[in-house]
Amino acid sequence: MNPSDWRTYLVTQASLSGDRTTPEIVRAAIDGGIDAVQLREKETSARSRHELGHELRELTAEAGVDLIVNDRLDIAQVIDADGVHVGQSDLPVGVARDLLGPDAIVGCSTATVAEARNAEAEGADYLGVGAIYGTSSKDVDDGKDGVGPARIAAIADAVSIPVVGIGGITADNAAPVVDAGTAGVAVISEITAATDPEAATESLVAAAETTKSVATREHSQ
Amino acid sequence: MNPSDWRTYLVTQASLSGDRTTPEIVRAAIDGGIDAVQLREKETSARSRHELGHELRELTAEAGVDLIVNDRLDIAQVIDADGVHVGQSDLPVGVARDLLGPDAIVGCSTATVAEARNAEAEGADYLGVGAIYGTSSKDVDDGKDGVGPARIAAIADAVSIPVVGIGGITADNAAPVVDAGTAGVAVISEITAATDPEAATESLVAAAETTKSVATREHSQ
Repeated sequence: MNPSDWRTYLVTQASLSGDRTTPEIVRAAIDGGIDAVQLREKETSARSRHELGHELRELTAEAGVDLIVNDRLDIAQVIDADGVHVGQSDLPVGVARDLLGPDAIVGCSTATVAEARNAEAEGADYLGVGAIYGTSSKDVDDGKDGVGPARIAAIADAVSIPVVGIGGITADNAAPVVDAGTAGVAVISEITAATDPEAATESLVAAAETTKSVATREHSQ
Repeated sequence: MNPSDWRTYLVTQASLSGDRTTPEIVRAAIDGGIDAVQLREKETSARSRHELGHELRELTAEAGVDLIVNDRLDIAQVIDADGVHVGQSDLPVGVARDLLGPDAIVGCSTATVAEARNAEAEGADYLGVGAIYGTSSKDVDDGKDGVGPARIAAIADAVSIPVVGIGGITADNAAPVVDAGTAGVAVISEITAATDPEAATESLVAAAETTKSVATREHSQ
């Protein structure tokens, strides 16, 4: 799938999944209509992520859902992921592009217009921007308060590649993020910590799609 | 160089190098006669390790010294290192071998005979065993007291690939480690924290070579 077609994107984090395993959360998200899954799990060992990665590859490949690996290009290669997502302190976008080739999806976390333009110039396929709202589940450069939809609008205007918002996004507050010009919304807690992850995904998909179709209609008038 | 020809092996750790940079420590170790250098620096970001890796590759390639990257197969590929070193919670030896190919040097940290036999079966070229003596510079499974030269002798007897001892080794206590059947000795502090890293390397090389030639002479009699 092209990242511009992503509407919803799940970033995994086992520590928030309660008594469910990460494959169980991912299976529920797939059943709920998720478009992409990022294997993150920064708190676990490379060996654990590698084993989990093989499981998630099987689940996502069957469903036609994109699988992206955070940070580790080697794990992405070994599990045959669709791509990688790198942050500002991970390997540079250009290095990932050179190692993984033109067909791999390479995404990059950016918090400013300058970072976004640089990532696009290095060959990124999409950008993750956040934390949009305050978040408790992911360390972000901009602290706990969130950069807000205005920042994502500025970044989306500055680049021609798709932008995904992340950080504190829920079905209820997704609309301003999509309205700001993003391709879609990425979440951790909203799905992973939900009592019913499948229903939570369905609500998020509905929120992202409704807003998107309204935005598209307004633009075309 | 074949790992069986290594006598001395430096594992980098910037936090122990005082006001010297890691490339300065490595340059001194090269001048002192080091055979192999492992880029470890677990406390720093992947981006920093990647930048440092390029610097160390230039220094070591000029000198004909092997460069090994700890844990990250992707960084090893990108900087064209000679190989990787993985621990029990990193990517498995077999995965590293498959990704990097038959010419890459693949090493593995092992603390028991069972782990050592497993790593050899998966295709490891050498084993790191430790901590031999107590150490303050590297977290090891066996705690702060060290497994002692007896453990390394048991492991060296159980496998046919070269074994490198690590953990608290100095020029003064290297002899029993080499006598136990190791190819050589790996150090962090002994060189990195030394007032004169080049002289410290020379002393370690002398200790490892003297013991080795005595051991070889005794074996051939």
